[in-house]
Amino acid sequence: MITTEQVLDALKKVMDPEIHRNIVELGMVREAQVNGTDVKVTIALTVPNCPLQDTIAKDAAQAVDTLADGLNVEIALTAMTEEEKQRLTDMLRREHRQEPAVSLAGQMNKVKSVIAVMSGKGGVGKSTAAALLAAGLRRKGLRVGVLDADITGPSIPKIFGVHEAPLMGPLGIVPPLSRGGVKIMSINLMLQAEDDAVIWRGPLITSAIKQFWNDVFWGDLDVLVVDLPPGTSDAALTVMQNLPVNGAVIVTSPQDLADMVVRKAANMAEKLSIPIIGIIENMSYAICPHCGERFEIFGHGHVEEMAQSFDTQFLGSLALDPDLAKVCDAGQIEAYENLDFDEIVELIQPRIA
Amino acid sequence: MITTEQVLDALKKVMDPEIHRNIVELGMVREAQVNGTDVKVTIALTVPNCPLQDTIAKDAAQAVDTLADGLNVEIALTAMTEEEKQRLTDMLRREHRQEPAVSLAGQMNKVKSVIAVMSGKGGVGKSTAAALLAAGLRRKGLRVGVLDADITGPSIPKIFGVHEAPLMGPLGIVPPLSRGGVKIMSINLMLQAEDDAVIWRGPLITSAIKQFWNDVFWGDLDVLVVDLPPGTSDAALTVMQNLPVNGAVIVTSPQDLADMVVRKAANMAEKLSIPIIGIIENMSYAICPHCGERFEIFGHGHVEEMAQSFDTQFLGSLALDPDLAKVCDAGQIEAYENLDFDEIVELIQPRIA
Repeated sequence: MITTEQVLDALKKVMDPEIHRNIVELGMVREAQVNGTDVKVTIALTVPNCPLQDTIAKDAAQAVDTLADGLNVEIALTAMTEEEKQRLTDMLRREHRQEPAVSLAGQMNKVKSVIAVMSGKGGVGKSTAAALLAAGLRRKGLRVGVLDADITGPSIPKIFGVHEAPLMGPLGIVPPLSRGGVKIMSINLMLQAEDDAVIWRGPLITSAIKQFWNDVFWGDLDVLVVDLPPGTSDAALTVMQNLPVNGAVIVTSPQDLADMVVRKAANMAEKLSIPIIGIIENMSYAICPHCGERFEIFGHGHVEEMAQSFDTQFLGSLALDPDLAKVCDAGQIEAYENLDFDEIVELIQPRIA
Repeated sequence: MITTEQVLDALKKVMDPEIHRNIVELGMVREAQVNGTDVKVTIALTVPNCPLQDTIAKDAAQAVDTLADGLNVEIALTAMTEEEKQRLTDMLRREHRQEPAVSLAGQMNKVKSVIAVMSGKGGVGKSTAAALLAAGLRRKGLRVGVLDADITGPSIPKIFGVHEAPLMGPLGIVPPLSRGGVKIMSINLMLQAEDDAVIWRGPLITSAIKQFWNDVFWGDLDVLVVDLPPGTSDAALTVMQNLPVNGAVIVTSPQDLADMVVRKAANMAEKLSIPIIGIIENMSYAICPHCGERFEIFGHGHVEEMAQSFDTQFLGSLALDPDLAKVCDAGQIEAYENLDFDEIVELIQPRIA
């Protein structure tokens, strides 16, 4: 016969994979009942349908199972009440000796590397490149998040097919996961309708981006990809001045007009001492679906010269692929295969700490 | 024999075509010499190489010529000194009972109609559409200006091939003229290098746009086309709240992703009570230069539905034309012929007061 105490002791070996503390200590084990060989454990998750619930349930079942042979272990999952969440928040705050005004998430996040994807100019495929980069790094087993810093024109949620509103957990805002396991945060997840306009002046844009960094519980990430809006104003400045950006990936298109505006963004990165990891030329050519011929739809680009003048790497050229537009519109970016982009990911990965 | 006084009296009939006052009163006639039948008049222009100098010289010669038969009239053109300019400014200020803090240009401009070209999303060809609209209306004989409200990603000067810095005249900043006679004002005309980044937060963006409206001597315009940057933040807000915008032309591209972001801009216009004149779908299709087949490079658009949902007009679809990219890069937009766009101009013109 085993005791409830033994069950709780066993559960102390089960760690919350993001908070890095055991679930008993965190107050997540709401009940443990032992009835002969029947053991029922009720675990209260920090947020309902927490993306890690299966891991936690499996680990808990396994931990109890090892106590004796022939046990019949049942793990029931539920969500913490507001009081339980508050108790957990208070405990963690006490341990981190934090004022309530300081964000717990900000202090507990462990983001190893921050990569900003920027172009200065809109419509060159910057968000698509950011999404492909995040998806590519995720496929390589990295823990990846995407912070959509384009507050007035956010497209990351749509490209990843993520639509649920983020939940408030005891540590901060919990970013929803994409199908492939990328953590996503964007203002569009918080709007009633996806086409609602966010008519905000700079200070509000700035505070939203700061909140996405400080108050979102990103947990452990190998890399956070930041999708910057066009322009060199508040959003770009806030990201470059307030986030520990390790490097910028610049996206351009072959038109001279784009070249000029994209150079502005690269000049900004240089001025703010953000290393430029490299430059991607998007929409370099199209392939006619009828005759299969390649043609340069925006003229011939000068991206290699641009890379040279900024003393950085030319990461590669991408076609203007109608299929890409389709997968973006369908929220299926993670299912898109592109050998050219895979090579770009290979070049960028070593630059991620 | 004629006298200097007669010459001056004759010159009082010559009007400055923009200030609408005679050139004597404005202090522009620096000297009038009569030597028998030889008459020499020196006119000091408000700015050197004033775009209207030929008109003024011709009118002056004609006015003097009618005084007597067989006159030999010579008109010499020069530019006002700083003192002369100041005297003129002071005179106009006195007449307009203006505090020095209030802009003279702002008070003397007569802009009949302001049209904002917007998209919310970058890279859908908004600046190109704004330029084509301005050039098209100019060809129809209208007096047209373009205010480039995209402070961090300005492309209007490049598209029009205008590169000279604006001059400071006695009434305010004088916008340079394009080859076709469109008045252009853009932050890029004021930068040392066209790819210098303008790293400004919202309040500076706002004050630059206000200055482009208040302190630029647009003179008499039938229409001022305002090219808005992507987004629904400071630039768009400033234009919609501070300029008397008569209507907005929305530019979109067929992608769902663009559709969503463009709707945000249209929603913003509605919220701020700016009438939506209509919607243009750009990049609707490409034509393969090898086989001549049309194909939808960004998928199939829903612009007619969008127009319906905003209770406005679908203005037309445009191809993604590699030639257009070329003329934009070469600053030759006014030489570009496009029958589809001509039809769009026909639809928009009646909406210009």
